[in-house]
Amino acid sequence: MEKIRKESQAPREEEKALVWGKNPVTELLKSGGAVDTVLLADSMPPAVAGYYTALAKQAGAVVKRAPSGKLQKLCGTTEHQGVAAWAAQVEYTDLEALLDIARQKNEPPFLVLCDGVEDPHNLGAIIRSAYLCGAHGVIIPRRGGVGVTGTVMKSSAGAAARLPVARVSNLAQAIRTIKEQNIFVYCADLGGAPLEKTDLSGPVALVLGSEGSGPSALTRKLCDAAVTLEMAPGGSGVDSYNVSVAAGILLYDIMRRRR
Amino acid sequence: MEKIRKESQAPREEEKALVWGKNPVTELLKSGGAVDTVLLADSMPPAVAGYYTALAKQAGAVVKRAPSGKLQKLCGTTEHQGVAAWAAQVEYTDLEALLDIARQKNEPPFLVLCDGVEDPHNLGAIIRSAYLCGAHGVIIPRRGGVGVTGTVMKSSAGAAARLPVARVSNLAQAIRTIKEQNIFVYCADLGGAPLEKTDLSGPVALVLGSEGSGPSALTRKLCDAAVTLEMAPGGSGVDSYNVSVAAGILLYDIMRRRR
Repeated sequence: MEKIRKESQAPREEEKALVWGKNPVTELLKSGGAVDTVLLADSMPPAVAGYYTALAKQAGAVVKRAPSGKLQKLCGTTEHQGVAAWAAQVEYTDLEALLDIARQKNEPPFLVLCDGVEDPHNLGAIIRSAYLCGAHGVIIPRRGGVGVTGTVMKSSAGAAARLPVARVSNLAQAIRTIKEQNIFVYCADLGGAPLEKTDLSGPVALVLGSEGSGPSALTRKLCDAAVTLEMAPGGSGVDSYNVSVAAGILLYDIMRRRR
Repeated sequence: MEKIRKESQAPREEEKALVWGKNPVTELLKSGGAVDTVLLADSMPPAVAGYYTALAKQAGAVVKRAPSGKLQKLCGTTEHQGVAAWAAQVEYTDLEALLDIARQKNEPPFLVLCDGVEDPHNLGAIIRSAYLCGAHGVIIPRRGGVGVTGTVMKSSAGAAARLPVARVSNLAQAIRTIKEQNIFVYCADLGGAPLEKTDLSGPVALVLGSEGSGPSALTRKLCDAAVTLEMAPGGSGVDSYNVSVAAGILLYDIMRRRR
């Protein structure tokens, strides 16, 4: 918890995402997202460095070499694989833009809202699943929950650079606005209707709560309905799926029903 | 990668799992798993400390108070919430024991194999989903992939203390043995049959590969079939779901078909 909070509070992580690791940096550079600087470890073999330099040039980014220790310090991890990139400020969009995307595609809206997801690995995996399942965008609150940090970008396997993410000041207001558009808002929660008996087709928004306590009481009240995943009989002591796993199961179901 | 390797190599993590955080320690103590020592931060309020002391007494564990800084150092994180526990050596079981469990329950076997899952958050989430979906156990290799460390225990929300985990020297041999039992072995992989056209009912084993490169070539060859998750059209640049999300979608599908 402490670590996550620190991450989302760090102005550098919020304003300018540092992305590291070979695949995430490659994805970022190829996605056309604005990148300021690409850092390559001094120890990187020339052929690999040449690859990233060419990609960076195409993306209009500056390449700098740095000692591996500096990369480790910047990334806060040894997992950087010799390459990191400063993405220009993550460009959050707004709810209206997400609704416009659905209109332009002439598709029933399909939105994902995160109500206090705190673990960047989970937010990254949720954005990745949302992208793969054809959602039009993800909505996160400005406060209460992690923003799109470097760890989120990395965990999303680059999907966070491709799927629009709206950051809203007031999640409750966003839910109200979504409902006014005749989009049915489901919240993933214990004690709701079983997924098997829930028809998630049509214009739909799925709300996911925090790792510790699920969606907030206000969010629960605002949603049109709650949907609950089944568990096999006999298991006890573990009462819910990991939030990004639950999101994946539900988003996959929505995708299947939309075809 | 570096960090994960360090974790699985650290003898302390391998031999004696350190579990931290309020929920994971509570789960561990309630699960009946062998616990040596429970460490409580000096700063923990007396009522909370009393709760853990009572739980520890029931579990036959010794309680020690420690400065918060010592907990932080031991856990390698500030996320310990004032409580940690040394679980006695994680008791891995073997494949035969998992098959016995299925026999005793008079259920068609339902097994999960991890072929090189490296991220402890992913292994924890996979064990959690396997437990909730009614699998009889999880099989991991002795080498190549993370073991059941404290982070895995925490990410599993305690499921790793409740669901048997078999550690095998040779995953290929385990797959062969499973096939001899007339259990159909699927591997989650790109380029296989779509999930929608795959009947995962009956005796089944699901193989999940590593985050970076999926199942190994030998594993792919040994499996009876590959099953692939669908993706919405239009997405590009991201070619797969997070491995624990993919596992969740597939395990949930297996659970539904087994009812």
